[in-house]
Amino acid sequence: MTQFNVGILGATGAVGQKFIRLLQNHPWFTIKALGASDRSAGKAYQEAANWIESTPMPDNVKDRVVRNCMSAQFEDVDFVFSGLDSSVATEIEGDFAKAGIPVISNAKNYRTDPTVPLLVPEVNPDHIELIKTQTFTTDGSGWIVTNPNCVAIPLTMSLKPLNDHFGIESVVVTSLQAISGAGYPGVPSLDILGNVIPFIGGEESKIREEPLKLLGKLKDGKIEHASFPVQATATRVPVINGHLLTVNVKFKKSPADFKEVVQAMKSWRSPIADLGLPFAPKFPLEIFEDERYPQPRLHADSENGMQTAIGRVRSGDVMDVSYIAMAHNTIRGAAGGAILNAELLVSKGFIS
Amino acid sequence: MTQFNVGILGATGAVGQKFIRLLQNHPWFTIKALGASDRSAGKAYQEAANWIESTPMPDNVKDRVVRNCMSAQFEDVDFVFSGLDSSVATEIEGDFAKAGIPVISNAKNYRTDPTVPLLVPEVNPDHIELIKTQTFTTDGSGWIVTNPNCVAIPLTMSLKPLNDHFGIESVVVTSLQAISGAGYPGVPSLDILGNVIPFIGGEESKIREEPLKLLGKLKDGKIEHASFPVQATATRVPVINGHLLTVNVKFKKSPADFKEVVQAMKSWRSPIADLGLPFAPKFPLEIFEDERYPQPRLHADSENGMQTAIGRVRSGDVMDVSYIAMAHNTIRGAAGGAILNAELLVSKGFIS
Amino acid sequence: MTQFNVGILGATGAVGQKFIRLLQNHPWFTIKALGASDRSAGKAYQEAANWIESTPMPDNVKDRVVRNCMSAQFEDVDFVFSGLDSSVATEIEGDFAKAGIPVISNAKNYRTDPTVPLLVPEVNPDHIELIKTQTFTTDGSGWIVTNPNCVAIPLTMSLKPLNDHFGIESVVVTSLQAISGAGYPGVPSLDILGNVIPFIGGEESKIREEPLKLLGKLKDGKIEHASFPVQATATRVPVINGHLLTVNVKFKKSPADFKEVVQAMKSWRSPIADLGLPFAPKFPLEIFEDERYPQPRLHADSENGMQTAIGRVRSGDVMDVSYIAMAHNTIRGAAGGAILNAELLVSKGFIS
Amino acid sequence: MTQFNVGILGATGAVGQKFIRLLQNHPWFTIKALGASDRSAGKAYQEAANWIESTPMPDNVKDRVVRNCMSAQFEDVDFVFSGLDSSVATEIEGDFAKAGIPVISNAKNYRTDPTVPLLVPEVNPDHIELIKTQTFTTDGSGWIVTNPNCVAIPLTMSLKPLNDHFGIESVVVTSLQAISGAGYPGVPSLDILGNVIPFIGGEESKIREEPLKLLGKLKDGKIEHASFPVQATATRVPVINGHLLTVNVKFKKSPADFKEVVQAMKSWRSPIADLGLPFAPKFPLEIFEDERYPQPRLHADSENGMQTAIGRVRSGDVMDVSYIAMAHNTIRGAAGGAILNAELLVSKGFIS
Repeated sequence: MTQFNVGILGATGAVGQKFIRLLQNHPWFTIKALGASDRSAGKAYQEAANWIESTPMPDNVKDRVVRNCMSAQFEDVDFVFSGLDSSVATEIEGDFAKAGIPVISNAKNYRTDPTVPLLVPEVNPDHIELIKTQTFTTDGSGWIVTNPNCVAIPLTMSLKPLNDHFGIESVVVTSLQAISGAGYPGVPSLDILGNVIPFIGGEESKIREEPLKLLGKLKDGKIEHASFPVQATATRVPVINGHLLTVNVKFKKSPADFKEVVQAMKSWRSPIADLGLPFAPKFPLEIFEDERYPQPRLHADSENGMQTAIGRVRSGDVMDVSYIAMAHNTIRGAAGGAILNAELLVSKGFIS
Repeated sequence: MTQFNVGILGATGAVGQKFIRLLQNHPWFTIKALGASDRSAGKAYQEAANWIESTPMPDNVKDRVVRNCMSAQFEDVDFVFSGLDSSVATEIEGDFAKAGIPVISNAKNYRTDPTVPLLVPEVNPDHIELIKTQTFTTDGSGWIVTNPNCVAIPLTMSLKPLNDHFGIESVVVTSLQAISGAGYPGVPSLDILGNVIPFIGGEESKIREEPLKLLGKLKDGKIEHASFPVQATATRVPVINGHLLTVNVKFKKSPADFKEVVQAMKSWRSPIADLGLPFAPKFPLEIFEDERYPQPRLHADSENGMQTAIGRVRSGDVMDVSYIAMAHNTIRGAAGGAILNAELLVSKGFIS
Repeated sequence: MTQFNVGILGATGAVGQKFIRLLQNHPWFTIKALGASDRSAGKAYQEAANWIESTPMPDNVKDRVVRNCMSAQFEDVDFVFSGLDSSVATEIEGDFAKAGIPVISNAKNYRTDPTVPLLVPEVNPDHIELIKTQTFTTDGSGWIVTNPNCVAIPLTMSLKPLNDHFGIESVVVTSLQAISGAGYPGVPSLDILGNVIPFIGGEESKIREEPLKLLGKLKDGKIEHASFPVQATATRVPVINGHLLTVNVKFKKSPADFKEVVQAMKSWRSPIADLGLPFAPKFPLEIFEDERYPQPRLHADSENGMQTAIGRVRSGDVMDVSYIAMAHNTIRGAAGGAILNAELLVSKGFIS
Repeated sequence: MTQFNVGILGATGAVGQKFIRLLQNHPWFTIKALGASDRSAGKAYQEAANWIESTPMPDNVKDRVVRNCMSAQFEDVDFVFSGLDSSVATEIEGDFAKAGIPVISNAKNYRTDPTVPLLVPEVNPDHIELIKTQTFTTDGSGWIVTNPNCVAIPLTMSLKPLNDHFGIESVVVTSLQAISGAGYPGVPSLDILGNVIPFIGGEESKIREEPLKLLGKLKDGKIEHASFPVQATATRVPVINGHLLTVNVKFKKSPADFKEVVQAMKSWRSPIADLGLPFAPKFPLEIFEDERYPQPRLHADSENGMQTAIGRVRSGDVMDVSYIAMAHNTIRGAAGGAILNAELLVSKGFIS
């Protein structure tokens, strides 16, 4: 496989650090450039970053000098991963795309742009065709692809086979979200130790909207969004990694019983199963039968944090079915998801 | 007010200890007798009990000799509180009732008995009339009253004004339950530290069923249960005290907007407000406007743990309204609820 | 008892909030003025403060307009409590003292000033005489008194009777400190959830030095510090309130066995026991015999958070004795300690 | 390398499960037999065990039938690992040794037997010669080797180079121990969530005594124990894995300053570095300079949980030096340590 040189924007932040950790030893991608704010630019990475990952900072980034997040300083990379803060991502990512540098972004800014794919390779790989409608450059060399919110991922991963089989009528979901989702320093310990915070700013609208774009259909170069309503409550719980969701779904075409729902999930086949993408989990969905599972602390790291775990699928009296869905919020739901997106884009020839 | 001598069944367990703590300095009730299993009977209470409350064991129980849970040994009390384990409660509570000793029970065993009131004074005080239909004794001197499950309490407290105003069509609820709800030793720390367990055995059926009896109507000496469906997911979170619920409700008669729902809660008046019951919270429902609230660690102890806290009332796209409800699971949801029941029964002349 | 009007400096911070909560319903002191930074000055307190206490903000401060921390704006108070940050305390507290307004401070800035009492009423009440040597004002109307670091308090409370009986030769101590000690937002949850941080900046030098001043002797208007060495390791643990210390002490005059040490602690009498100070704990030292105790979550709130709990007193092979000491860090170790200081100063006629 | 068939005694318990997990894919050892109590014997392992490891139960043990812990049922193994409970280990391990089956045990029962090596390969590999003095069998085919307590391991690992350089005069240590050290169900969550328990039954005597045997000298077929006193306080903290120790050491020959102590640790070379043992950490001691480190959650898993992490080495006023030591309690301090012991025994020809 061809090798690619990559840059990381927002390299000193929590998501940026996760990119660095996950890309260590990646078979296709080599970190060539690290970009951060003016405060960090010019310093060695180990001086600029307050490293919070539990594995040591990789040697190959320690002495690398951090650059400004300006496209002119990233001419030596094939594309960039963006872990930028949303306060600056619109401008910087646009700058890179216009300069002909593809941007694979975890930021929310371009997710709702109708020409930008909101991409989960197992769910809507065909949406990458949207790239061709982007106008950042005249020759198509610069573009942006985004990955969804960390709750939208396990929700959509679980809804995909159900939508295909039964058609989704409506969803009521509660999320129990890990503290790593708030970045660093993030949630003060006095707020969350032995506690639940029943609110996360800006989260519920993403949970309502992003699954609809992800499950939308590509028609005539545009995404026709799915149209079912989602009612969401987002809470924070004292868990390190792994967002757990309690999901209730009503179908357009009711299954005979919940076993049919389990069967739909089990028989679902990932459309990228045969592409040999390094970050693709072998089993994107794991369906637990032990009713105590999944649990964030036990299962968030399954398949290197890229698996979505499902459990307690059962019938309901109000909506057809209830179940639990859980995935690693900063791997599957952020940096790992973006890396898988990049792998798909390489595989499909968008990066070369 | 007349003074009453009370006994406590299951006095060494977690609920029994909570009864002892809460009854300390009670203006009407004096602990006269403590009952526990054969293993404890005959010992001084401080020898028999592994005290887990955070305030010291009251002096007046330390040297009290624990009795067997046999009615013959409780002739010196006016009634008993029961914190018995469900494995023995059917037989023992029945024995006491037949012996003419009223039983105010926290155990689940008689909750579904059509002649036994499942009682929340603010919700269905009229249900105590059911007592007259009980046949434990020929003279009506012995009877049983129960309080509901610790999730059913805040759920029903919040649904009561809504059912009165709008009529409830259906409910979808997720509970985030504190570890104290599992008693002692209860949940192993290895299972719950930094984790969520998405299952609590036997809990969801109580959440579905108990609100229907509580919101039922007394007609011709029987309870006509409410009939809306409840879809529930019960989870355990690393919180000490306070069960938090995310509640979604669909109404028979839709409100204009969520503010009407808030108004219905705020304008609701407790039917026992004027009875002067010592354990009755001044404000049974507190409606928070700060969207970060309620939180278990901050608000479970409000009004001595007897208040139900509500927050984040807002409109939904699938069901009419979503909100958070939270109450102290071992006070409002167990021992404190039973004490308030006893106070109502005194006030209404059932205990004298 | 005469009533006093008090001001609170740093009123919006964590310590300031604790002052407000603890002074609610104080029999002698009424909050008259709240001071904070320029950012807060001019706003109603409820607008300026992010209230983090678990009991609601008292009604009598909600609408009170926050003032600048300038002495000219505090002429209507008899004295002030200071919960100021150390970055500004030197200047502001000095300004108040010079203006003739006594300052009872929790800040560290003046603790080492040889003319400023570092005061724990049960340990060194005679040190208040130092006030007379202060030169902030010519008429003695303005002065500063400080209370010690939150670890120094339980350490010194436990060492006091031992120093009196046996003479202390040396101390080796490890602290397991609660997160509330770091203020708000303080410790990021990602750093401390399920973890220990074996370092707290600036803490160990205070633990080494403050007990020596507290146990010093007043001679000719000066404090002759005690002179034993203290070796300290300060760690942070995921506990809300209550600093727990493992203490090892070598004596000048070895006791026959550890029971003599227990006896020395038990027979110790607080020199302020008969003064009737509202915040004085009835039993300043509680000696547990149950070897599982004391524990922060169970015992930090004992005697309204003003008690120091001792446990596991036993002989050692390297140093004479080992034991556990624990006290509430933000009550006994901060705001509550300062209030008790103020009460002693009133009782002794320094405030009138 | 020759392959060996191994058995695991106590296979369903917490330590037994850790053996199974760690031996998965071991290059030398293949699990052939699982032994447990009568309650489990005869059942498939997946029926008998309540699997608590965070990685899935390996397929090759799921259907393996659990045997009784009797030597006659283990004739097909070359040796056994024992994770037996101390209540039964004396008899069962003795039975296996007498039957000619070597026992590599994590149980405490034989640790103090003068003919049984208490072994840490990096510290006292020569102690394995003790095996030859054992009399379980006449031909020397059956014997027992033990690994030390989970606190004794990091303590002794850190003391070894210091004892070699400076001679240890005395040690004062406090342990902050993880909950996994108590097995399963172990510590009730109500006891430890947001709390510290300042006592662990039976722990402190092991911390005092085991380092003395480990640092003892083999002379004439016997171990001459080291003789310095250790004063220990063991506490439990809400951490999953990783025992952290605050250590204070006085030397016979004082170093010029603490840097000499750091140097002694850094220049120390493991005596087994060149043996190619699969479980031997490349760097048995990691010395952190960042004063916030080591931390259990960040560093317990370093080098597959086999490394001992050191930090905050600094001078003291009472004893020469203070530092932090930390290691994974159930890997380095239990099952992983036993596996490394087995590897050394293979390497030295005791198992063949």
